[in-house]
Amino acid sequence: APRESGLRVCGWRRPCLGDQKQPCPDYAKERYGVSSMIQSQEKPDRVLIRIKDLTVEKADEVVWVRGRIHTSRAKGKQCFLVLRQQQFNIQALVAVGQHASKQMVKFAANINKESIVDVEGVVRKAHQKIGGCTQQDVELHVQRIYVISLAEPRLPLQLDDAVRPEVDGEEDGRATVNQDTRLDNRVIDLRTSTSQAIFCLQSGICQLFRETLIRKGFVEIQTPKIISAASEGGANVFTVSYFKSSAYLAQSPQLYKQMCICADFEKVFCVGPVFRAEDSNTHRHLTEFVGLDIEMAFNYHYHEVVDEIADTLVQIFKGLQERFQTEIQTVNKQFPCEPFKFLEPTLRLEYREAVAMLREAGVEMGDEEDLSTPNEKLLGRLVKEKYDTDFYILDKYPLAVRPFYTMPDPVNPKNSNSYDMFMRGEEILSGAQRIHDPQLLTERAQHHGIDLEKIKAYIDSFRFGAPPHAGGGIGLERVTMLYLGLHNVRQTSMFPRDPKRLTP
Amino acid sequence: APRESGLRVCGWRRPCLGDQKQPCPDYAKERYGVSSMIQSQEKPDRVLIRIKDLTVEKADEVVWVRGRIHTSRAKGKQCFLVLRQQQFNIQALVAVGQHASKQMVKFAANINKESIVDVEGVVRKAHQKIGGCTQQDVELHVQRIYVISLAEPRLPLQLDDAVRPEVDGEEDGRATVNQDTRLDNRVIDLRTSTSQAIFCLQSGICQLFRETLIRKGFVEIQTPKIISAASEGGANVFTVSYFKSSAYLAQSPQLYKQMCICADFEKVFCVGPVFRAEDSNTHRHLTEFVGLDIEMAFNYHYHEVVDEIADTLVQIFKGLQERFQTEIQTVNKQFPCEPFKFLEPTLRLEYREAVAMLREAGVEMGDEEDLSTPNEKLLGRLVKEKYDTDFYILDKYPLAVRPFYTMPDPVNPKNSNSYDMFMRGEEILSGAQRIHDPQLLTERAQHHGIDLEKIKAYIDSFRFGAPPHAGGGIGLERVTMLYLGLHNVRQTSMFPRDPKRLTP
Repeated sequence: APRESGLRVCGWRRPCLGDQKQPCPDYAKERYGVSSMIQSQEKPDRVLIRIKDLTVEKADEVVWVRGRIHTSRAKGKQCFLVLRQQQFNIQALVAVGQHASKQMVKFAANINKESIVDVEGVVRKAHQKIGGCTQQDVELHVQRIYVISLAEPRLPLQLDDAVRPEVDGEEDGRATVNQDTRLDNRVIDLRTSTSQAIFCLQSGICQLFRETLIRKGFVEIQTPKIISAASEGGANVFTVSYFKSSAYLAQSPQLYKQMCICADFEKVFCVGPVFRAEDSNTHRHLTEFVGLDIEMAFNYHYHEVVDEIADTLVQIFKGLQERFQTEIQTVNKQFPCEPFKFLEPTLRLEYREAVAMLREAGVEMGDEEDLSTPNEKLLGRLVKEKYDTDFYILDKYPLAVRPFYTMPDPVNPKNSNSYDMFMRGEEILSGAQRIHDPQLLTERAQHHGIDLEKIKAYIDSFRFGAPPHAGGGIGLERVTMLYLGLHNVRQTSMFPRDPKRLTP
Repeated sequence: APRESGLRVCGWRRPCLGDQKQPCPDYAKERYGVSSMIQSQEKPDRVLIRIKDLTVEKADEVVWVRGRIHTSRAKGKQCFLVLRQQQFNIQALVAVGQHASKQMVKFAANINKESIVDVEGVVRKAHQKIGGCTQQDVELHVQRIYVISLAEPRLPLQLDDAVRPEVDGEEDGRATVNQDTRLDNRVIDLRTSTSQAIFCLQSGICQLFRETLIRKGFVEIQTPKIISAASEGGANVFTVSYFKSSAYLAQSPQLYKQMCICADFEKVFCVGPVFRAEDSNTHRHLTEFVGLDIEMAFNYHYHEVVDEIADTLVQIFKGLQERFQTEIQTVNKQFPCEPFKFLEPTLRLEYREAVAMLREAGVEMGDEEDLSTPNEKLLGRLVKEKYDTDFYILDKYPLAVRPFYTMPDPVNPKNSNSYDMFMRGEEILSGAQRIHDPQLLTERAQHHGIDLEKIKAYIDSFRFGAPPHAGGGIGLERVTMLYLGLHNVRQTSMFPRDPKRLTP
């Protein structure tokens, strides 16, 4: 079957270069071409070497490599290719000689960028460092080259443009790629070294979160996302048609985490999607995000839980520093940023202290007023100046600004046993001691004007003995964004969902 | 505030026992009672000991324990309590003497079952093994007892009934608990030793799945659950209202896994909810279940991927054997079952071989006919007899019974590069080599009568170079059910969703 591409002519019919009327013999014709589609026809013994493993230790070895054509540049009787594999790349040279004919060089030069090729070549020590490649000390002298999967000739975005740092204020004339183009063509945008690094690091955050909690004796739970009643009165909830009836998408796993605590699992966590039907088009809101959720029974004081959560985040930060240094540096190349700072133990400020700091900085606000986003950011800067940390806990929020199930403070009834955690001045976790007494819970729900009938099942969960407990939910995309100092949560969601975007 | 319970009288007013008109002095009155709600008033130094750590090594030590009243039995001047903490329990004795008054014994005897109490007591070596308790060699001589959270006097189900094995055919007169009562009162049902063991083991399956794949170089991805187009033509899909428009719930993360492969992540996995709007009320269907999904680029043959998936499952089975023996035995007490058997390497049969085995056993079926559920089960028994394994792979399904994106077999065009995996004769994974060539994919979609416009984004994902790849999706609840030899997937979903159940 013919393939749609500029390659068809040279790939399938292998014509000669130049204007000759008669075809000239091609002594290399078996050494290049377009492979038939890999349909699992065979199990050859051939070993494919990883590009990152091509170093001077392999000099003069003949190897097979599968990679993408990252760039190609023909120059007389030779063609320089850069072959890419994830974050790694190497220069490959196809030059007319014993193994390659003119026709083969032309074939190689004409392969569309982003096509996947199998290359056999000799690893050669480079005479000088090869700039722009991760494998700077070696190059590959190509002896065979076959196209495994052909890319279309026109790419909707160029990878080099997509990793170019944006220069503030200056117009340096070189293209960058805007966010919608990236997201519309996410399959290509995700191939950049920056994207590869972001999502490898995000995978690491998930592993570190779970590793730490399993070590602390937590149990992973799975909570349903289709629920019969909207937990907090029905605002910002997506409706689902459910056979002949209707249902909702869970805005948080909190009720289920709490039920597990009432069912004696003591320490639980879950990782899963959270749905918010908020029409917010900001840099940090998504309609679907990944929640890293924790809930834990405690003995006497909810700070036992706060300490566990904060330590879990600290273990994540440390693990990222240790295991993902390459990825952090890769992202920094495009998005320069100060290293993330944190203290051990984590700084815990009370809300009233934060209000005092803000007032000292000229902000006018009431004692029971919630923090606005600009004030959160300002507070982040003030805390960084004073304590030199990008991560801290704000404890004892005013009761009035928290949900009905939040335990009131035992000393000052205007306060509550609740807390947020911040990274670089933005909230990444919200949590609290929950009311475990059905009578107080009923009173507080009534105070908030909530229809008791709708939360009956929730309140009933606490009627058969409930331990005191607290917890919180962390937004995965925000943690990734803020750890790396990025500026939009869409950069850290592979396929982001917001009020205006449902694709790809 | 008075509390609704039989305890109110004795707990709050502490009356004397008997008919005396005058109250008699209670020398132990500070040693028992109902604590005020734990609102994080203080951070006492008191250490609470875990019940599982109460062994003869602790004999004669005074300890504090927090647990639930599992049972209580008053007998003259003493009261025997069984205190429970997750899967562990211990006998506690409150007897009139130096530390306990008559009133205190009566108070203890009247505490509603499932209430949470703090108990101070001396650990004493038991004179004889205490049957029915996990801590058989010691008992606790109670010196103080305080109610931390009071259960209502009537429980909707009894934990002892809920762990009783069902005796087939025989009526032994002892109560068991039916499934709807369990699920309606899941907070209590999940407290049984069987439930605790099932869900600790399920948490283990998730950890083992991820541990193994991370070790193999896979990256964890997060895929969206709200999608703009139903992937396979719109059957069995839940609709979501999305602001002024509508959307769907993802029936599988497959498209997104494949996009990640096209974006060079090479080996990816994800764990998350999968939604199926099938009106199936069977023992193994849920409308929302947890998918353990894998997708992987391969070099030459999809068996590279099949081997990785099968080995991942083998690592899970081994890990469960090593780390969750206690849990397996606990579940076996209520649901007796043969240990799960598997081979290394995993047995792989071709579909035609399975058809031959079934025909030999008297089943009439066509070469291109799919397996019915009874035939699947029969095949499981035949394979077990012949090969002594509860786990095997069925490879090379007829192309006709698989989805349009399945790669046809290169030799026999009626077959396909697809496979299912089975545990104890039931399917737990379905997978295939996917078509990575946009032209062939288009042809196959047309052959299946699929509207190309609706899958344009899917097909376009393969236009810019796509490596050959394969993958599959595992149902977590089924793996848990079949590994433990249980008979209903609702036993292995904490909060199951089916066409008739959306609560709790």
